[in-house]
Amino acid sequence: MSDPVRLGIAGLGTVGAGVVKIVTKRAETLAARAGRPIQITAVSARTRDKDRGVDLSPFAWEDDPVALAARDDVDLVVELVGGDSGPAKSTVEAAIANGKDVVTANKALLALHGQALAEAAEAKGLCLRFEAAVAGGIPCVKALTEGLAGNRIERVMGVMNGTCNYILTRMEDAGLPYDTVFAEANALGYLEADPTLDVGGIDAGHKLALLASIAYGTRVDFEGVKLEGIERVSIADIRHAADMGFKVKLLGVAQMTGRGLEARMSPCLVPASSPLGQLDGATNMVVLEGDAVGRIVMRGAGAGEGPTASAVLADIMEIARGTRLSTFGQPASTLKAGTRAHSGGPSPYYLRMDLVDKPGALAKIASCLGDAGISIDRMRQYDHPESTAPVIVVTHKAGRPSLDAAIEAMAETGVLIGEPVALRIEQLD
Amino acid sequence: MSDPVRLGIAGLGTVGAGVVKIVTKRAETLAARAGRPIQITAVSARTRDKDRGVDLSPFAWEDDPVALAARDDVDLVVELVGGDSGPAKSTVEAAIANGKDVVTANKALLALHGQALAEAAEAKGLCLRFEAAVAGGIPCVKALTEGLAGNRIERVMGVMNGTCNYILTRMEDAGLPYDTVFAEANALGYLEADPTLDVGGIDAGHKLALLASIAYGTRVDFEGVKLEGIERVSIADIRHAADMGFKVKLLGVAQMTGRGLEARMSPCLVPASSPLGQLDGATNMVVLEGDAVGRIVMRGAGAGEGPTASAVLADIMEIARGTRLSTFGQPASTLKAGTRAHSGGPSPYYLRMDLVDKPGALAKIASCLGDAGISIDRMRQYDHPESTAPVIVVTHKAGRPSLDAAIEAMAETGVLIGEPVALRIEQLD
Repeated sequence: MSDPVRLGIAGLGTVGAGVVKIVTKRAETLAARAGRPIQITAVSARTRDKDRGVDLSPFAWEDDPVALAARDDVDLVVELVGGDSGPAKSTVEAAIANGKDVVTANKALLALHGQALAEAAEAKGLCLRFEAAVAGGIPCVKALTEGLAGNRIERVMGVMNGTCNYILTRMEDAGLPYDTVFAEANALGYLEADPTLDVGGIDAGHKLALLASIAYGTRVDFEGVKLEGIERVSIADIRHAADMGFKVKLLGVAQMTGRGLEARMSPCLVPASSPLGQLDGATNMVVLEGDAVGRIVMRGAGAGEGPTASAVLADIMEIARGTRLSTFGQPASTLKAGTRAHSGGPSPYYLRMDLVDKPGALAKIASCLGDAGISIDRMRQYDHPESTAPVIVVTHKAGRPSLDAAIEAMAETGVLIGEPVALRIEQLD
Repeated sequence: MSDPVRLGIAGLGTVGAGVVKIVTKRAETLAARAGRPIQITAVSARTRDKDRGVDLSPFAWEDDPVALAARDDVDLVVELVGGDSGPAKSTVEAAIANGKDVVTANKALLALHGQALAEAAEAKGLCLRFEAAVAGGIPCVKALTEGLAGNRIERVMGVMNGTCNYILTRMEDAGLPYDTVFAEANALGYLEADPTLDVGGIDAGHKLALLASIAYGTRVDFEGVKLEGIERVSIADIRHAADMGFKVKLLGVAQMTGRGLEARMSPCLVPASSPLGQLDGATNMVVLEGDAVGRIVMRGAGAGEGPTASAVLADIMEIARGTRLSTFGQPASTLKAGTRAHSGGPSPYYLRMDLVDKPGALAKIASCLGDAGISIDRMRQYDHPESTAPVIVVTHKAGRPSLDAAIEAMAETGVLIGEPVALRIEQLD
């Protein structure tokens, strides 16, 4: 058996403690599979005296993760500090500068600085791997980078924020409005300290940007992801969608078009009978479509101690086995600067709006759509005890620019109350 | 960029032609991802003059795949000949003897001879990889071997024969009996030349044996897989199952128990609302349960040119990238000879039987179950115009030996017509 791989673990939150548990408890199995022992030599966290449910006494302690990353007795630095800059970034940089491989679960750091970090690591022949950063325990980075390496990737889709999917599912199941369920989720500790990271689609957008880079051989471009959160999705939208056989999901979609890379993270309607539509609760799903393989659907826990630690271990084991892969599936220096195609291909849309309850209001709205070249598949006006008339429109396929033009024109008619909600109906067949 | 990887492709059926197409059409992408060109230097098949939709003129031709495996200008042999012995086996053996890495889609060969072949390859530092042998395009070998390498695997499940799933789904959707749908499937060319390989569960059993070896670090033991085909599943079973919220699937299950490795491929009832229950048509699904990751569900095409070629390419790319993994996730020489635990843990069962239409018949059957210590959850006797009375029993959790004892006792009562159908209700939560 070869020399051990010596780990330095920076960050001992839930995931860090989970990694310590697995490495300790499964030492024999891991060594058999890797062909060499996996050992922890040093750990680091902000506070030393805290019960994490694991015995840290066998490991050297460092108050400063950057110092941990410089230790001679560490071969591989596991960065679980979190945050898109600060100590997480310094730790990864220090690890690379000191010739250590790096495994991280940090989507924000890689979405913003992944190109520079991967280039720095690869220039020194080091690995920087991030399975745990995308969709938790689902080995989707590996599936895309390796399992589908023979494919031209046609579309990458994902429900990759469990909290948002929990909120949307709970709204539907309990018939509760967004604000109530948001407060519930917050009380349960499901939300990030800054909830916009979750409900604004930012966290899931980070993940999508990383997958898109692998899929299309382009530089990570988080700024190019069109983000839309779930804050404006109402229980009415969810019910109308259900009536028509759809579910509302915060869905990420990345595809290469003739105009460039289209990447968006937004609430969409998907068929209720599709695997995406059937995804309830905090579970994640990643859908990969390749020209040869067709559609691969992967489902699993997207967060939590065990699932995330499992993904961290996958990367550790990969490196321990001697596998040396580029961060984004090909050398970072060869990734192309992608062109952004924001608008999205033509698609049916779901529109909900409130109109003033006056004769001709509906006709005006319909005209705006017609003038923009958008034809209507279905239109419903609902019962309305109040003076505002709720109207639902499902369009035939329309380009987003045309839709935006129609919505702008509607605003000028004076019959619209508030802003319409426009949700793309993502086509799955 | 490094030296090219030079492929020798043995077998030019649908999958072989598919591999040639991808390697030719996607040369640039593959080279960018692998860091070196992927080239075909030689091919071999039984008949040379046949239009396969690909131009073979740039490649050397060998009538004999064993000769192809010995060529100096081949680094990696792709075995797509098929069959559990004969030329497929000789080709792989010749490749190993001549120091070539091997990629194969041949589940039968590996299920029967995988241990010896893997040991031979590994003794020479060679790779023998088989992603395409299990569940076609779904990268489940990779997910299990690498993605879940940090887990103790608790259960592996799979619907891994698309033809059987097509037959069962079609029976339900069209309300047709087994024989009719079997004939349909045969006419459509969905069945193997020896249909028992499909409907007898053998093909899927081969796949399960391979996954079990990776999951539990045990030698491949196809003989240890308890096989039961779908031939006795009737449209009545499917309907009764549906009435109770279940679907009938040819489901493979492997789990390590206190008594040893339990591996079975048999028609089971699964909840209709579960991902397994929702799997319609020829699609495959693999479910991996690990102690850390929880449940990972993977779904995709289990056969066909593109999906299978995609999986073959995954292995080719892995080797081209310099990744050197053991065939079964750890050196074959370290795999343990597993103990077989045939009986399966306690589980509810679905029983269908025909009784003579006489007073006391039902009571006798109920007594047999009671005497074997099996309690009844539900029992239904259906309308019966004829003199046989169809009865359905759903038991509470029971061990298979107790159930078999009860069925044996029933046979002696004289009230049973024919043999009962007993289907395990696989528990998913």
